[in-house]
Amino acid sequence: METNVVKVKSNMVDGDTNQDIETPNNITIKGILGLLMANTETASDDEDEDIVNGGGNLLIKMKKKKKVISLGMGDPTAFSCFHSPAVAQDAVLETLASHKFNGYAPTVGLPQTRKAIADYLSRDLPDKLCADDVYITAGCTQAIETALSILARPGSNILLPRPGFPIYALCAAFRHIEVRYFDLIPDKGWEVDLNAVEALADRNTIAIVVINPGNPCGNVYSYQHLKEIAETAKKLRTIVIADEVYGHLVFGAKPFVPMGVFGAIAPVLTLGSLSKRWLVPGWRLGWLVTNDPNGTFKNPKFVERIKKYCDICGGPATFIQAAVPRIIEKTEEVFFRKTINLLRWTSDICCEKMKEIPCISCPHKPEGSMAVMVKLNLSILSDISDDIDFCFKLAKEESVIVLPGLAVGLKNWIRITFAADPSSLEEALGRLKSFCHRHSYQQNGHC
Amino acid sequence: METNVVKVKSNMVDGDTNQDIETPNNITIKGILGLLMANTETASDDEDEDIVNGGGNLLIKMKKKKKVISLGMGDPTAFSCFHSPAVAQDAVLETLASHKFNGYAPTVGLPQTRKAIADYLSRDLPDKLCADDVYITAGCTQAIETALSILARPGSNILLPRPGFPIYALCAAFRHIEVRYFDLIPDKGWEVDLNAVEALADRNTIAIVVINPGNPCGNVYSYQHLKEIAETAKKLRTIVIADEVYGHLVFGAKPFVPMGVFGAIAPVLTLGSLSKRWLVPGWRLGWLVTNDPNGTFKNPKFVERIKKYCDICGGPATFIQAAVPRIIEKTEEVFFRKTINLLRWTSDICCEKMKEIPCISCPHKPEGSMAVMVKLNLSILSDISDDIDFCFKLAKEESVIVLPGLAVGLKNWIRITFAADPSSLEEALGRLKSFCHRHSYQQNGHC
Repeated sequence: METNVVKVKSNMVDGDTNQDIETPNNITIKGILGLLMANTETASDDEDEDIVNGGGNLLIKMKKKKKVISLGMGDPTAFSCFHSPAVAQDAVLETLASHKFNGYAPTVGLPQTRKAIADYLSRDLPDKLCADDVYITAGCTQAIETALSILARPGSNILLPRPGFPIYALCAAFRHIEVRYFDLIPDKGWEVDLNAVEALADRNTIAIVVINPGNPCGNVYSYQHLKEIAETAKKLRTIVIADEVYGHLVFGAKPFVPMGVFGAIAPVLTLGSLSKRWLVPGWRLGWLVTNDPNGTFKNPKFVERIKKYCDICGGPATFIQAAVPRIIEKTEEVFFRKTINLLRWTSDICCEKMKEIPCISCPHKPEGSMAVMVKLNLSILSDISDDIDFCFKLAKEESVIVLPGLAVGLKNWIRITFAADPSSLEEALGRLKSFCHRHSYQQNGHC
Repeated sequence: METNVVKVKSNMVDGDTNQDIETPNNITIKGILGLLMANTETASDDEDEDIVNGGGNLLIKMKKKKKVISLGMGDPTAFSCFHSPAVAQDAVLETLASHKFNGYAPTVGLPQTRKAIADYLSRDLPDKLCADDVYITAGCTQAIETALSILARPGSNILLPRPGFPIYALCAAFRHIEVRYFDLIPDKGWEVDLNAVEALADRNTIAIVVINPGNPCGNVYSYQHLKEIAETAKKLRTIVIADEVYGHLVFGAKPFVPMGVFGAIAPVLTLGSLSKRWLVPGWRLGWLVTNDPNGTFKNPKFVERIKKYCDICGGPATFIQAAVPRIIEKTEEVFFRKTINLLRWTSDICCEKMKEIPCISCPHKPEGSMAVMVKLNLSILSDISDDIDFCFKLAKEESVIVLPGLAVGLKNWIRITFAADPSSLEEALGRLKSFCHRHSYQQNGHC
């Protein structure tokens, strides 16, 4: 039997028939953050402990080990200052307690939920959306997966921003879509390099992905730049996938302009969720929306395809869907303002503190979302080989987690999430400063 | 611009480059039930109204129109007698109110949820599962999608039961997996035709799908038959996907035996959810489990692949996941017994009532799940062309919804869901009897 089991294994998992069942090689954010976290947990058992604890003015300690502070993931709920609104929770408690929403929802979403999202998004659009434009998904992640899967076809390619959000590339790999990266330009506020987009696109290009407000860069695009993107998509006869999971989370000079405003220029698939603006990423309530006044997406074949795709997805819980109309209606402006003010404050802390650290530089002050890309100046660091090495040593020595830029497509940069409580953020950046000081040539007497 | 928009449409949606973006043609259960439901809603405005209302001894009316009774979908929550346990709701209310579970869960699921499911399933297995064997999904639907997607490879095929659950074929079509159907044999308690399985399989067969307790047939497989399936899978060097979404919902002579019992013979991927046993299909809490004492699925490549696939799926809400340990611990046996007793009762009603209807016959009394397959005897029906025609006319004339067998792979059969309250079920079957009587040759004087 053992022989047979081994053969099963070989046939099924290793692919002995020369068939490709390789897993995509992409780094995932959660994967690398998990490794970094594991790296901190052994710190106090390590011989480096004295060095670690000798390096800074620690405010927070857990026994002899520093408290881990993660600025790695875009999940603000880890910090108590980012608290979902009570009305949202009450709305879900009510729909759950009603016993009316324990059954299946239509796979495209409850009609009242689709309508509520359509109305919510229409506030900022010249052409109003209807419920049928909205498909409810299990978070923005499933909206991404659905968008790519329904557009995928043999030989197709997709244009992704670099730096960007790695789920797109992972998803594209599973769906056999070729990925072509265009650069975001740091010195131009991380704007899309439209010349690069034009050079990369061909007739098999299924979409250009635009993330605004930007993750991982914290940029916010102007009306004019978004219009140029739409015009480029039109010229290239493709569509825009507009990832607006951080929609409305802006605190700089530029307002948030939804890409759907330009849906009449080029068809737009807008992706979003309650996750970030309502601070409930774990509720898995997202949407995919066709922003398309010219009706391209109204093609019956397309509608049928997306509906059938929804049939094979497990969507979000029915009672959470049922709460959405009330959540949108009842959440007061003051809640959103509080979040914005907090993010402005923490992003300011981030920028101010970073100015004190010579080995890192931030080319563009964040104006939105919850993260910023920071460049490492490796030439003044004595024993750090790259961003991965930087992040692992930082995790081990200082119990501070930041994301290596490689995970979002930019080697030797790091992504810092500033959606943290101010004191933790200051503490973490203080440790980062100590870490950089300790590893600089100057400190080590090498130059 | 108009021209350009049309070209975009053509390029993107119609596939003018000879590339296949066709939507799979499969009928979906929800799709066809939606059409049937729409067909009832116009009944009272119709000239057939007098005939309709003249045909039966109606207990339930809404004005002049009959109340719609759906025996179409496997969602018992539509009937108040199928009520989820209070402890389950309390557990979710508590995790939601705790504010601790608004953030992201690991994409494979919360550790405590994985552990609770592993322990729950291990009660019935010779080899105990561990948390790492369990991946938490958005309902059993996402477990199906994940299983097929991680196993898919170019040129692969999957063996599906006929009749079966159409999501498998739809999913396979989206993942470019060839579907090969083996018959379930009605006169042998809907057992798998193992000779057919052997004849269909080749080296590109990625799995045999077994749904037990059976949907749509209501059958329950014996220990011996399940063992034979595992041995066949071993012989064919493939694996078993065991869909046990109706696990434990048995009320006949045979106990429920999980396929995982035979995981040492052939590797088993077990799919399940809280949906049916806890009567909460809308909570979208499912699982995919590797039942595999010989460790085939422990291949690091396979584990990496499934983990990365979980990264692109939006899983279930974190706070629902967090409630699972308490739900499993606190739900009392009496709740499960009550459901079983009710299903036994309603399945008995179904069988008794059907005996009074000459144009339908049931080859195998249901022993589990919530549905039964019933054969139409079209030869004694005067003006019914097939199962689709039967169901549409029944919906229109009697406001009773049953599923055409074509939707589950058996033309000129129908699937009746008996997870309904007894009075509605009796009423619906009474109407079905009137309908059949009215459409029989005898009634119409044709023979």
